[in-house]
Amino acid sequence: MFDLYIANKNYSSWSLRPWVLMKALNIPFKEHVMAFEGGNGASRDTFLRFSPSGLVPCLVDGETAVWDSLAIVEYIAEQHARVWPKEATIRAWARSASAEMHSGFSTLRNECPMNCGVRVTLQDVSAGLRADLARLDRLWQEGLSRFGGPYLAGDEFTAVDAFYAPVVFRVQTFGLPLSEASNAYAKSLLTLPAMQAWYQAALDEKWREPNHEADTLKHSTLTADYRNA
Amino acid sequence: MFDLYIANKNYSSWSLRPWVLMKALNIPFKEHVMAFEGGNGASRDTFLRFSPSGLVPCLVDGETAVWDSLAIVEYIAEQHARVWPKEATIRAWARSASAEMHSGFSTLRNECPMNCGVRVTLQDVSAGLRADLARLDRLWQEGLSRFGGPYLAGDEFTAVDAFYAPVVFRVQTFGLPLSEASNAYAKSLLTLPAMQAWYQAALDEKWREPNHEADTLKHSTLTADYRNA
Repeated sequence: MFDLYIANKNYSSWSLRPWVLMKALNIPFKEHVMAFEGGNGASRDTFLRFSPSGLVPCLVDGETAVWDSLAIVEYIAEQHARVWPKEATIRAWARSASAEMHSGFSTLRNECPMNCGVRVTLQDVSAGLRADLARLDRLWQEGLSRFGGPYLAGDEFTAVDAFYAPVVFRVQTFGLPLSEASNAYAKSLLTLPAMQAWYQAALDEKWREPNHEADTLKHSTLTADYRNA
Repeated sequence: MFDLYIANKNYSSWSLRPWVLMKALNIPFKEHVMAFEGGNGASRDTFLRFSPSGLVPCLVDGETAVWDSLAIVEYIAEQHARVWPKEATIRAWARSASAEMHSGFSTLRNECPMNCGVRVTLQDVSAGLRADLARLDRLWQEGLSRFGGPYLAGDEFTAVDAFYAPVVFRVQTFGLPLSEASNAYAKSLLTLPAMQAWYQAALDEKWREPNHEADTLKHSTLTADYRNA
């Protein structure tokens, strides 16, 4: 059985990726939620106890630690079918799109951090954010139209959907302006049982991490907070 | 035969990764060097002609475009042996380390951009850079000692060495302070025929891109410029 170490479900976009992939594919694992400690990065020491980089997510399989979301996906793909699309060309597309998210979209990440439980209005859409959204929209539309949908790489949920799942929560929180096709994709992903389960757990978390809260409101105004605790 | 689109060898750290991997493994490909145009990102349109994201490196295999360095490595690994280590635990380590570089080490990237042909002295080592270097050193030493060297994942050059190859050029350019073991690894990687070939081609490039040049000297003073043109 895999052990998956993750951080706050409300904030940790990287954690969501392997979590939602394994849930959607019914791959059993034991989750360990380690809340971010305060706003000063003091948690790194705690996280270093299970993750060599001090970062989450980290998958532990016996003696093997896999400490990055994309490496985790490849590790799981070696043992389970359906992680990536079956057809080589579609798999290459899905891996390229996932890796592009893994190292890119920095303005989207910075200006619209994941904060599942709140709703905000963006005060201004910067040129960088506009460029990131244009690329995101183009990428999603390409996948949906080329491979037939309703998922990014065809009719099954694969790792590329898991990689964009955090963006889907950002679309909801920030009301990001996207095309009709991309919006429909985001909405349908939010209804998946795995996404709903993550969202409910995020709403129930009692932790508030000052840096994540401040970053959420750096370019935005709060309109609603659906968190329960 | 693969077509590999890359940018300036002097600057493009992402391009170096698949290039040096394929050279080291004797995988044939046709290279297409597309120089960055000026300092204002105007090149994106040109790059969009062959790369869906407008970024390099991009591998083209017939109708299939693979537009990210890590996705390219996985694409090649499906067709060629020796891209990743053979043993599953070592492969998981190599993939984690590669993915950590793919999305991380942002201060190292920003404060010490790749600029193969010059030598500089760092004026100050920021706290962020110190943290990145400490992590880098820890990671390299772990790989070298755990898997026996001389490469990061054992006695063969694999994709994880390719992923850190740009850092090796940064160590040379910026004289980055590392442990003896890490320095020895960097020095030995620089002597590989593939690394030497890239370096010579970088020295022979006539292009000077103002942004990359300015970024190199943001925290550093120039001490030598070995470029020929």
